[in-house]
Amino acid sequence: MSTIGRESRPGAPVSVAWSPDGDAVRIIDQRRLPGEYVERDLHTVDDVCDAIATLAVRGAPAIGVAGAMGLTAAMAAQVRLSTADFTVRLAESARRIRETRPTAVNLAWAIDRLLRAARAYAGDNVATANALHDEAQAILDEDRAMCRRIGELALPLIPDGGRVLTHCNAGALATAGIGTALAPLYLAAESGRRIEVFVSETRPLLQGGRLTAWELSRAGIPVTVLTDGMAAGLMRSGRIDCCIVGADRIAANGDVANKIGTYAVAVAAHHHDIPMYVAAPTSTFDPATPTGDDIVIEQRDRDEVARGALGAIVPAAAAVYNPAFDVTPATLVTAIISDRAVHRAPYDFPAHPDTPSR
Amino acid sequence: MSTIGRESRPGAPVSVAWSPDGDAVRIIDQRRLPGEYVERDLHTVDDVCDAIATLAVRGAPAIGVAGAMGLTAAMAAQVRLSTADFTVRLAESARRIRETRPTAVNLAWAIDRLLRAARAYAGDNVATANALHDEAQAILDEDRAMCRRIGELALPLIPDGGRVLTHCNAGALATAGIGTALAPLYLAAESGRRIEVFVSETRPLLQGGRLTAWELSRAGIPVTVLTDGMAAGLMRSGRIDCCIVGADRIAANGDVANKIGTYAVAVAAHHHDIPMYVAAPTSTFDPATPTGDDIVIEQRDRDEVARGALGAIVPAAAAVYNPAFDVTPATLVTAIISDRAVHRAPYDFPAHPDTPSR
Repeated sequence: MSTIGRESRPGAPVSVAWSPDGDAVRIIDQRRLPGEYVERDLHTVDDVCDAIATLAVRGAPAIGVAGAMGLTAAMAAQVRLSTADFTVRLAESARRIRETRPTAVNLAWAIDRLLRAARAYAGDNVATANALHDEAQAILDEDRAMCRRIGELALPLIPDGGRVLTHCNAGALATAGIGTALAPLYLAAESGRRIEVFVSETRPLLQGGRLTAWELSRAGIPVTVLTDGMAAGLMRSGRIDCCIVGADRIAANGDVANKIGTYAVAVAAHHHDIPMYVAAPTSTFDPATPTGDDIVIEQRDRDEVARGALGAIVPAAAAVYNPAFDVTPATLVTAIISDRAVHRAPYDFPAHPDTPSR
Repeated sequence: MSTIGRESRPGAPVSVAWSPDGDAVRIIDQRRLPGEYVERDLHTVDDVCDAIATLAVRGAPAIGVAGAMGLTAAMAAQVRLSTADFTVRLAESARRIRETRPTAVNLAWAIDRLLRAARAYAGDNVATANALHDEAQAILDEDRAMCRRIGELALPLIPDGGRVLTHCNAGALATAGIGTALAPLYLAAESGRRIEVFVSETRPLLQGGRLTAWELSRAGIPVTVLTDGMAAGLMRSGRIDCCIVGADRIAANGDVANKIGTYAVAVAAHHHDIPMYVAAPTSTFDPATPTGDDIVIEQRDRDEVARGALGAIVPAAAAVYNPAFDVTPATLVTAIISDRAVHRAPYDFPAHPDTPSR
């Protein structure tokens, strides 16, 4: 079941919740954003697997929560099975949901947590279903609390009037709460602080332009989308006070693996003496990995880059920053090769080029 | 008239030339690349204005050459007019072509050069047409020679086996010759040097992914397309030996205005101690502009960023670099905000996160 329409709750969107009847997990279908707002109720294991596999729900924390809640909803509808069949169905359903995205550690972790919680009630379908529900609810509550704590801890780092750059989507759409990198921005706006957010579109999949711009603009936070190559120039023009991004994995030495393009933001921020913050739950810390060089990076399909995306890739409510050119200061240029010479600094160009050759 | 098909000449494509009969200017229709190779013969002033206005031909040098040759072809078909009518038609045609892209200095410069050359022959239509032809031919020849000289001067900077990053399109498609930034790459390949080119796609209009990748791959030069946010990470992985880009304007102090995203490439190259070369004709030097801060940057339409492009945006012959994540070293991170604390270097993460909250 899906409903299409405008969502009216203020603040951060709720990307994972129980349906009003409590018999399904209700998600925002992220494949349709920013063009359409569609909520989808996942009742069955098929519904849940399809939503996770097709990225209707995405973001490691959100997937974990949705998977746990989806397993709970699917099993609640099966309590009239024999206890033997119910047990088989639970194991089978857990396995199927677990396998939809094998690399997202949160999903396997959440499903395993449910199975452990249910173990004590084997032979009693209703008690098992209740245990699943309680554990899924705990995972949901913990995820929301985690987001809020990150937001509260990061809030003092966001100056009033602050102009904040973020990359990709580490927001409400990627968690069950108010996000990680975006959490302090929601809290800043909530507390009446004036902030302005710039988000790089995040090619190839455009999570910044499509998702972050959507969730911030619907919460009334001014947001401007730029292409990834524009962030450095924006910093140079003095229009960014700090950067904040999420993380997929953090090595023991503090090296951060995150969406491609994050490193470019960090290098540019460093060059301009702009703070570069990373917001992530402690579950992202990986003390077993000494440095970032030990993290294997997934290489993805060429078509993500090579085929054009269709339709609107920035919500109408978000601004766009679109300068055609930028200026590279001479200090960053090794040499200029003209049709006359290889010029090096200090430059002594002819005062009057006599015959322009183009 | 247009022909659709595969172009067979080796090396750099010829983006502006006389048609075989000499009665038109033949261009490659850049709107159709990389999906289709279409040559278009421009016979009339309408043809020329339409091709320039709709970016069928683009790149400041190429537009100047195409405008001059187009005016020549259009007037050659009018020599049977009365001399009075021919004079009026010439002035009117020159004005119309000149106005199609008012900011491209090369176009106005080339048209004015033709009008000056024709002035001595007023009253003799055939002699005027011949003078226009000779001057257009000179502009074409000079542009080709300029490209080759830049290539020869820059060639020693490109190491054998060199892995070169470029941005946008400063190639054969932007000039009548072998380009500016791409000129040394064509010469390197011609001379048997093994080079490998990486090109950032250049959002929003994707000139790198669409045009540079097309012209280099058809010349047999290995080329890999990346999104703009990937260039810094590629440099960090040690896979880039130098960068070379074109320029739209160079201030007296050497500051370089070029396609948006060039500055980000320069900052990243600087951070990794990788040479950053700029290749441009001396006509690009602007001694009247003291520094880059005095250059006004054009802000363009939001839809270039906000609407998705359609179809193939990278030619099939070009490789694609598409890592999902990158690693930001701890030295570039100001602080990590978790659900526990604001962590700063040196990091002391818990060895065993007890309850992962996601």
